[in-house]
Amino acid sequence: MVITMLPAGPHVLKVYSEQIIGAAPSSALLLDCSTIDVETARKVAGLAKAAGYAFADAPVSGGTAAADAGTLAFMVGCDEGDFARVEAALAPMSRITIRAGDHGAGQAAKICNNMLLGISMLGTCEAIALAEKLGLDPERFFEIASKSSGQCWSVSSYYPWPGPVPTAPSNRDYQGGFATAMMLKDLKLAQDAAAKSGASTPLGAQAEAMYALFDGLGHGGRDFSAMLQMLRGQLSTLETK
Amino acid sequence: MVITMLPAGPHVLKVYSEQIIGAAPSSALLLDCSTIDVETARKVAGLAKAAGYAFADAPVSGGTAAADAGTLAFMVGCDEGDFARVEAALAPMSRITIRAGDHGAGQAAKICNNMLLGISMLGTCEAIALAEKLGLDPERFFEIASKSSGQCWSVSSYYPWPGPVPTAPSNRDYQGGFATAMMLKDLKLAQDAAAKSGASTPLGAQAEAMYALFDGLGHGGRDFSAMLQMLRGQLSTLETK
Amino acid sequence: MVITMLPAGPHVLKVYSEQIIGAAPSSALLLDCSTIDVETARKVAGLAKAAGYAFADAPVSGGTAAADAGTLAFMVGCDEGDFARVEAALAPMSRITIRAGDHGAGQAAKICNNMLLGISMLGTCEAIALAEKLGLDPERFFEIASKSSGQCWSVSSYYPWPGPVPTAPSNRDYQGGFATAMMLKDLKLAQDAAAKSGASTPLGAQAEAMYALFDGLGHGGRDFSAMLQMLRGQLSTLETK
Amino acid sequence: MVITMLPAGPHVLKVYSEQIIGAAPSSALLLDCSTIDVETARKVAGLAKAAGYAFADAPVSGGTAAADAGTLAFMVGCDEGDFARVEAALAPMSRITIRAGDHGAGQAAKICNNMLLGISMLGTCEAIALAEKLGLDPERFFEIASKSSGQCWSVSSYYPWPGPVPTAPSNRDYQGGFATAMMLKDLKLAQDAAAKSGASTPLGAQAEAMYALFDGLGHGGRDFSAMLQMLRGQLSTLETK
Repeated sequence: MVITMLPAGPHVLKVYSEQIIGAAPSSALLLDCSTIDVETARKVAGLAKAAGYAFADAPVSGGTAAADAGTLAFMVGCDEGDFARVEAALAPMSRITIRAGDHGAGQAAKICNNMLLGISMLGTCEAIALAEKLGLDPERFFEIASKSSGQCWSVSSYYPWPGPVPTAPSNRDYQGGFATAMMLKDLKLAQDAAAKSGASTPLGAQAEAMYALFDGLGHGGRDFSAMLQMLRGQLSTLETK
Repeated sequence: MVITMLPAGPHVLKVYSEQIIGAAPSSALLLDCSTIDVETARKVAGLAKAAGYAFADAPVSGGTAAADAGTLAFMVGCDEGDFARVEAALAPMSRITIRAGDHGAGQAAKICNNMLLGISMLGTCEAIALAEKLGLDPERFFEIASKSSGQCWSVSSYYPWPGPVPTAPSNRDYQGGFATAMMLKDLKLAQDAAAKSGASTPLGAQAEAMYALFDGLGHGGRDFSAMLQMLRGQLSTLETK
Repeated sequence: MVITMLPAGPHVLKVYSEQIIGAAPSSALLLDCSTIDVETARKVAGLAKAAGYAFADAPVSGGTAAADAGTLAFMVGCDEGDFARVEAALAPMSRITIRAGDHGAGQAAKICNNMLLGISMLGTCEAIALAEKLGLDPERFFEIASKSSGQCWSVSSYYPWPGPVPTAPSNRDYQGGFATAMMLKDLKLAQDAAAKSGASTPLGAQAEAMYALFDGLGHGGRDFSAMLQMLRGQLSTLETK
Repeated sequence: MVITMLPAGPHVLKVYSEQIIGAAPSSALLLDCSTIDVETARKVAGLAKAAGYAFADAPVSGGTAAADAGTLAFMVGCDEGDFARVEAALAPMSRITIRAGDHGAGQAAKICNNMLLGISMLGTCEAIALAEKLGLDPERFFEIASKSSGQCWSVSSYYPWPGPVPTAPSNRDYQGGFATAMMLKDLKLAQDAAAKSGASTPLGAQAEAMYALFDGLGHGGRDFSAMLQMLRGQLSTLETK
């Protein structure tokens, strides 16, 4: 079995075409857990399949904590007949493994999910910043939003205001967690995919611009929920720590 | 007890100042369930309180189906000492009643929650439209997003693509449900509140412009999840039915 | 003749209804040069007209320098028959006076023009910041954009990068000029007008959110072209001076 | 002399590396007038230069009418010493030829200029649509905006409302002119350049999403100023003709 996890499409293409395909025994299961563009994922799958390998794109969701605990989530694109092998191979690291469809579908699922995450997190930050301005206690807003139609993972499991969700990075000065620069990378993949496929994603586009702004202001290393501090006009609380 | 539910702030102010305050016995509990601006809610509360009444702003979440079933959610702004009476009064209609804070806080909670809902629904529609373009089955995307960090109420309980959530308006040609024009009204309240309080809400502003576009194209009466059809370039499927 | 210039609609309504109408001789020409919402402008005009006065809404374009030099631009809403008097009255202060239409049309013209200005200025800042990142000298970009289809007043007369337009605030650390907070006020009027009239203005909405963000970060007193420094990740150059 | 004009970066790279470099005499001046990404332009320039050629990226501004009339505008990236030859070569086709800088700077200038154009055109459409809703005659708004701080090329030379600028496509049902699909292509280049270089372009991102929406609704062949009809809720006027 070969498992890879690389920064971007060109690295994946290079490593598979130059170092893995042909070198690994053809019985090997090839699993690429990188988050890359759908097009390259399909290209590499085609090369691997032509050489007789079972291949899957299997990008991962969940941070370093989930990796340590073996509770990652994998979104898999592979031939239907290969999925049982893929699932078994990933079991020791995962909480859940879902087959999204054929080759490339794992990447598509990751990109679409993370675009929605980037949007709902920014929306959550905007709602909290507005609540505060209107004299509504953000802790009280948590109680309400988590039980209402505004509920989303960013509220329930990752609340950007310290207190309600003790495990959220907001409780430790937005250190650790999912870095803004990583979210930005995923949003760029989404925008690139939208441009190439002809999709219109108004909020996805705007979210990308906003995370890019925050990154450009020097905060790319902070957890992405720290956007709340920019919206609140409190960038200095990030800078002084 | 007096319960009111009116279209906008001016109506509430007029009805309370001209017809309720002074006319109702001062022991009456006054409950305004309209969704209006925070400022007017606080003004009316001030007038009511000065005249000796217990008053609460108690906007409601949930549609006509929840009203029929008595499972609405109320977000309440009132004096702490009055909340038990308010909760008891609303119990026959409600699944949940939460005190958001003092006068106006109920409106603030409703506005912030619905802004987040408007954003996450549009984000959900964008993610589905992109998934489709990338060759990822929207039904498969439901399975993934509902268990991942992109999870939100718009995915889990109101999926805009027919199938996965049988009760969602997407299964009945986007009829009924929460009309685009009503969501637009709430987003305008949010933008007005943001402008007056000095909050910056980039996605909230964008969402308002997009729902206004959809409404301007003649689809204000459709459920707000029908935005998906505009993003997919399928407005004609709405028009021909 | 009575000329007023006040912060917002409520002030104008109060001053005219309580202190001017009835107090001034009915032969007096009433000119309100405030920038306010169209609705209030029409309401005040109605009151004035009913009392027998000639009234015009005549908001002004141009800063304190133009005021000193007597080269302001006035956008006028008034009865056609009153325009000659209005024009003559404003002549000593103006470079140009244009009748936009009936009562309220002066305000509508001001709001629409300034929304377009807010958008084109932010667009200009984005184009310059991108040019710089791509290795294109912003001074060279000025030469090109000012002669091409990207030409706009923000490029030709107010370039946000120091050098090409010596009179622009960019040459004096973005001091003076047209403060971000004033541009934000006008964009809020535009968004309020859009919401009330049912217009969809995606870029206008976004521009408002971005100027609000810049204002919220403490730079409301800077000229609005200083947005360039936020986009360039150079907020500190504003803070240290 | 070799002049090329091709759809996208990969075509340019392929044609130059496989068919021009080495085949043309090294004294030949190589001019690529395509609009492509900066990166590829620099790569091709490097290959050409290494093989001893004078090369320039020289994308063009102006439509088929300007091409017929020989009044195009060229934005050139080349070695300073080669510019005189480039200018002479393009003279028969051009009204103006400007050197933007070294290799790639022509593409950067084109991309930045057209992003600003896409933004200011959409902003102009929004301002006109708002003016109309506020009861301000769009022809009167032309007179005002073209003489005020909202002035831009989209107003002065390409007004999206029929009448004021007789040569504008708005006068001929938005046929001909600069197709929405072409503007969208340029905005995608801009967004791709922004993503790769780390620039934040909120309005550029939003404009891309809006033109993509209009294209997805089936209007990619219309002049880009036809966006006005979408904002006015008048898509049917485009469809029925």
